[in-house]
Amino acid sequence: MTDFSNVNALAFDYFGTIGNKLALASMVDEHFPGKGNGFTKLWFATIQRYCFQTGMMERYMPWEDLTRAAFRLAAFESEMDVPDEFRDELIAADETLPVYGDAHRGLSRLASKYQLYVLSMGSASMIRKSQANSAIDGFFAGILTTQEAAVYKPGRRAYEVGLEGIGLPREQICFVSGNSFDVLGSKNFGFPTIWVRRYGQPLDELGLKPDLIVGDLEEMANVLGA
Amino acid sequence: MTDFSNVNALAFDYFGTIGNKLALASMVDEHFPGKGNGFTKLWFATIQRYCFQTGMMERYMPWEDLTRAAFRLAAFESEMDVPDEFRDELIAADETLPVYGDAHRGLSRLASKYQLYVLSMGSASMIRKSQANSAIDGFFAGILTTQEAAVYKPGRRAYEVGLEGIGLPREQICFVSGNSFDVLGSKNFGFPTIWVRRYGQPLDELGLKPDLIVGDLEEMANVLGA
Repeated sequence: MTDFSNVNALAFDYFGTIGNKLALASMVDEHFPGKGNGFTKLWFATIQRYCFQTGMMERYMPWEDLTRAAFRLAAFESEMDVPDEFRDELIAADETLPVYGDAHRGLSRLASKYQLYVLSMGSASMIRKSQANSAIDGFFAGILTTQEAAVYKPGRRAYEVGLEGIGLPREQICFVSGNSFDVLGSKNFGFPTIWVRRYGQPLDELGLKPDLIVGDLEEMANVLGA
Repeated sequence: MTDFSNVNALAFDYFGTIGNKLALASMVDEHFPGKGNGFTKLWFATIQRYCFQTGMMERYMPWEDLTRAAFRLAAFESEMDVPDEFRDELIAADETLPVYGDAHRGLSRLASKYQLYVLSMGSASMIRKSQANSAIDGFFAGILTTQEAAVYKPGRRAYEVGLEGIGLPREQICFVSGNSFDVLGSKNFGFPTIWVRRYGQPLDELGLKPDLIVGDLEEMANVLGA
């Protein structure tokens, strides 16, 4: 097994790693029965594409604008006529997003051994609210976002925000994400990296591999002896 | 209307603009009835994502490797058990890809007024074969690809390859693409830009707009008076 004995801090991606974005699918299903999974999958994939595409052009748009533009495209492609109020409700739902069932117990154990941080592309206030709603805010030493630096993951500068914000040497910070692109991006930057592979999804075969793969945050605490 | 009177050269994206990639869907349908459209859509979207994702990490993989990795992911997600021989056949089919019905007549007219180039992420030999198969090779002054420079669209350096290869000032080169990300990328670089919007697809709302939108290459020849 990879040696994590030098690690003193864990930097977590938030949405898809701690916050359970799939909860939005059931909100969609209430208004558009049977369309929740397909729509949210396309929506999230489009947000990701817009993020990568904008980053490649060396441009930046606030995350909320990316999210809204992607929402419009996904609604168009899904042939769904979404009322503005419901769209705003779905976008605002990120703030009150439930966390995964393993998050509270897993983070509680990990916080006893490591300094915990969030490094997200979303807004700090949104993450703060989601954490407070699920009573996991006390486990974190800080929330870092790439918004002030106006950069996106998986660009190197996004992970630089984590390195500077945490203030420890690179090898002492382990990056943890549920998203394949983010795991590979942090590995590419040089962090030790753990993939929380929640759905048995395949790893993007782009010539990089995470140092450790776990199913959830409790399994991660077990493996790290926390 | 936008003024194209300074333009002396047209730089075309190839696949999805001149070469008709959708032809692959019917090859897939022969082996996996009813799955052709869904599978090829996911495959192409994954190629695009891998390209953007790898580019954001400032890495590079040959286009063929990206294509194969994306194929594996799309087959996995589509729950299709694709024999290796058929996979290789599909990937090789790019070489013999038919062109759109409007390509020969449209390019013939445009070539009488402008120097025509291809600027693609694919390999020059693949594009040369596809052009020869459809008897459109005589219309082009050159094929430029981003492979030697090991860069991807929509990064600025990819369009720099076109600028250097054509050797005219930026405002004299109009970039033409059927792909929204490529139209926006070339606009971001500073080329005058035409979007060949073949399927009424929506424009990615990322703060950039093409200078002209046409339905196909014959309509483009009409508008440019060629």
